[in-house]
Amino acid sequence: MQVYIEPIGRLINEFSKLPGVGKKSAQRYAYKIIGMSDSEAQEFAAAILNVKKKVKYCKVCGNFTENDVCDICKERDKRTICVVKEPKDVIALEKLHEYKGVYHVLHGVISPMEGIGPDDIRIRELLARLNEGGVEEVIVATNPDVEGDATAMYLARLIKPLGIKVTRLSRGIPIGSELEYTDDVTLSRAFIERKEV
Amino acid sequence: MQVYIEPIGRLINEFSKLPGVGKKSAQRYAYKIIGMSDSEAQEFAAAILNVKKKVKYCKVCGNFTENDVCDICKERDKRTICVVKEPKDVIALEKLHEYKGVYHVLHGVISPMEGIGPDDIRIRELLARLNEGGVEEVIVATNPDVEGDATAMYLARLIKPLGIKVTRLSRGIPIGSELEYTDDVTLSRAFIERKEV
Repeated sequence: MQVYIEPIGRLINEFSKLPGVGKKSAQRYAYKIIGMSDSEAQEFAAAILNVKKKVKYCKVCGNFTENDVCDICKERDKRTICVVKEPKDVIALEKLHEYKGVYHVLHGVISPMEGIGPDDIRIRELLARLNEGGVEEVIVATNPDVEGDATAMYLARLIKPLGIKVTRLSRGIPIGSELEYTDDVTLSRAFIERKEV
Repeated sequence: MQVYIEPIGRLINEFSKLPGVGKKSAQRYAYKIIGMSDSEAQEFAAAILNVKKKVKYCKVCGNFTENDVCDICKERDKRTICVVKEPKDVIALEKLHEYKGVYHVLHGVISPMEGIGPDDIRIRELLARLNEGGVEEVIVATNPDVEGDATAMYLARLIKPLGIKVTRLSRGIPIGSELEYTDDVTLSRAFIERKEV
């Protein structure tokens, strides 16, 4: 006889697929769901289906949006493009309320170790945006690690010949850490003190 | 402008309702869902709805079941009843494969601090089972904390006059800890060395 009855085992298995969630946490989450009212559980399930149905990638910057083009691309100053690795990095920067320009989400960084080259991330799309003109500065806000630095160097060599300023967040960010987990003050400072590559 | 678009914010909010899940973890879980295929996300949502639809409480012991009466109550030796606080405690004990009797889940313990009295937990149902006859021993496996001990003492005073042996898990379990988190060896020993109250 198995320890869990089938519906509970199945839900625990689903929760175990979430990042950093072990069997014990997954069990606790499953019991929480069992203890919810029917309408609460339905809300939860609907939120999962809803996010899959409604969330798309912005055709311009690659960030999450409910429309073809995201609100940031529609409303903000297009003279500056801040290049980040992932959508969660946009969230980290937006929380500061410092930056007034637009973004470009690469959905990855160049990583020879993992076999990810320039063509595997959204660099072509970035160049297309730059070729449309009007961009004065590209801020490369990839993580301050080997892959992030390599990507920044690659972009600088590509973009500078176009006569566009390329900057990188200043090295107030602790080396080897992830942008998402940098505290706001450090991140804010790094943004203000960004330096031309 | 809010930081998250509505469907993502809504899903993060749902994940934040799970025990021990903060905003950062909830965001990570939400991004994981966004990165899933449609069918994977549908499976996840279905598992949540399924658990609410299928999981009921056993009419006899109060444990989780898909039927009116759980498999343990149907198949196992009814001369011994092991009394626990919550369904997750049944899981912790079943993992040992030591115990061959049945369970009784109280769904709580007596706690004057929280205003929970004997009538608020499934003690009446336990007495009804005992009055049907055939039970030789009641093992009280509530947590070894103040409320668990108080509940055990209360049950012992109630059940002993019926001529039924009442035992409690031996004090190998670290005091103040929770049964669910006790390591298997300690828990197994405590089970074997259970003592009459």
